[in-house]
Amino acid sequence: MAVSTPAQARARFRAGLRTPTAGWCPGHTQANLVVVPRDLAYDMLLFAQRNPKPCPVLDVSDPGATSTPLFPGDLRTDLPAYRVYVDGEAAGDVAEVTEHWRDDLVAFLIGCSFTFEDALVAAGVPVRHVEQDRNVPMYRTDRPCRPAGSLAGPLVVSMRPVPAELVPTAVRVTARYPAVHGAPVHVGDPAALGIADLERSDYGDPVEVRAGELPVFWACGVTPQAAVAASRPPLAITHAPGHMAITDGRDADLHV
Amino acid sequence: MAVSTPAQARARFRAGLRTPTAGWCPGHTQANLVVVPRDLAYDMLLFAQRNPKPCPVLDVSDPGATSTPLFPGDLRTDLPAYRVYVDGEAAGDVAEVTEHWRDDLVAFLIGCSFTFEDALVAAGVPVRHVEQDRNVPMYRTDRPCRPAGSLAGPLVVSMRPVPAELVPTAVRVTARYPAVHGAPVHVGDPAALGIADLERSDYGDPVEVRAGELPVFWACGVTPQAAVAASRPPLAITHAPGHMAITDGRDADLHV
Repeated sequence: MAVSTPAQARARFRAGLRTPTAGWCPGHTQANLVVVPRDLAYDMLLFAQRNPKPCPVLDVSDPGATSTPLFPGDLRTDLPAYRVYVDGEAAGDVAEVTEHWRDDLVAFLIGCSFTFEDALVAAGVPVRHVEQDRNVPMYRTDRPCRPAGSLAGPLVVSMRPVPAELVPTAVRVTARYPAVHGAPVHVGDPAALGIADLERSDYGDPVEVRAGELPVFWACGVTPQAAVAASRPPLAITHAPGHMAITDGRDADLHV
Repeated sequence: MAVSTPAQARARFRAGLRTPTAGWCPGHTQANLVVVPRDLAYDMLLFAQRNPKPCPVLDVSDPGATSTPLFPGDLRTDLPAYRVYVDGEAAGDVAEVTEHWRDDLVAFLIGCSFTFEDALVAAGVPVRHVEQDRNVPMYRTDRPCRPAGSLAGPLVVSMRPVPAELVPTAVRVTARYPAVHGAPVHVGDPAALGIADLERSDYGDPVEVRAGELPVFWACGVTPQAAVAASRPPLAITHAPGHMAITDGRDADLHV
């Protein structure tokens, strides 16, 4: 990695680099981005409060602001890729969203499981999508979130294959990070979550699950995107899945 | 205590019993109540998100609803006492608030430190206000909360005198309960928080700090009441300090 600080990473993305951010800026907190108009902000914040496992809120902007204390960069340009939803339809991934920004937009930064991947590696648990330089695979499940006002949708999960003997370690390590999804929601059986085929991820890239490994599923901050897709607000702006906001926060401040 | 279940306690309060609730229904989660009109609900929820230590949100009602999943009683009658704020002025404590209820009101249940007092006692840490059958003393500090929209105000703290040798135990035990204020915010010096005189509490009753004891201060769920008083919304309804909502939640589900 040619960059080491969050400010350097944000500058690279602002200059046009498009890449998933797993493995970037070890020790610094990565975040999901969801931006909605002010009149939908209460529903979004309440949706997060009612579904804290997939939606741990790390920071919320004031209406129209383009940065927050946690993310002192420019929210319109400093992520590697964005997804714009119009009436719930993803209108394509773009490098920046300056033209879409409005004075009434409120940005939510939501914890991302990339944050605890350093701790997994330090504990000897391999992280396949980082090893293979791919985006993490993510799946819509058949588990409904608790609705909030106009927002409802399914739980989305990320998946990491873990050697069976390391599953307890993976659970123990990630449980210490509740602000970035914490312990897994499920181990072992994709069908129990309504996932028909691990090879067909709904977001990101599938990765190989090898002999002796179990698929382990963590709640994922793409869950608000699924709610936006299901609930069809006129406008929402998010990060492109896996292409996160790299904040100035430190992972060490998040573990309990 | 003649009652043992939350439903029994709520029925007693509904029938008119007015008492602080420290020590009631051991093992069940007690909560602060803040009720505001829907057009102020986003500011209140955001204020809580930005000040999680004093304002850990446990549940939020839908507009006009008189119960929540966590509090299956009647929010208008089943607390031992309420405080009604009109334009930021406390308009007196009342036994029930049915006449003030409106279809646009949203109720927030916020964690209360009474919840961890069982764990303190179990660890050998005495709780003076329970021993003396008084309300816990609470103080407005000179520490500002992070504002949210129209809401701003000081951190409010509760105080428990702890024998000096048990302070580490008190910190360790309560740190395990972040959803009900967690570890203390300060140990030992009231002046450092801008508290001039422990004998003059802003809410509740002063209690004796004996030789060999230190005053220990925890963030308090009365903090939103101080914000309501400072920010003067047209209407807000809260519990009377110390007279909490006794929920069906279990303390065991809150510790980490």
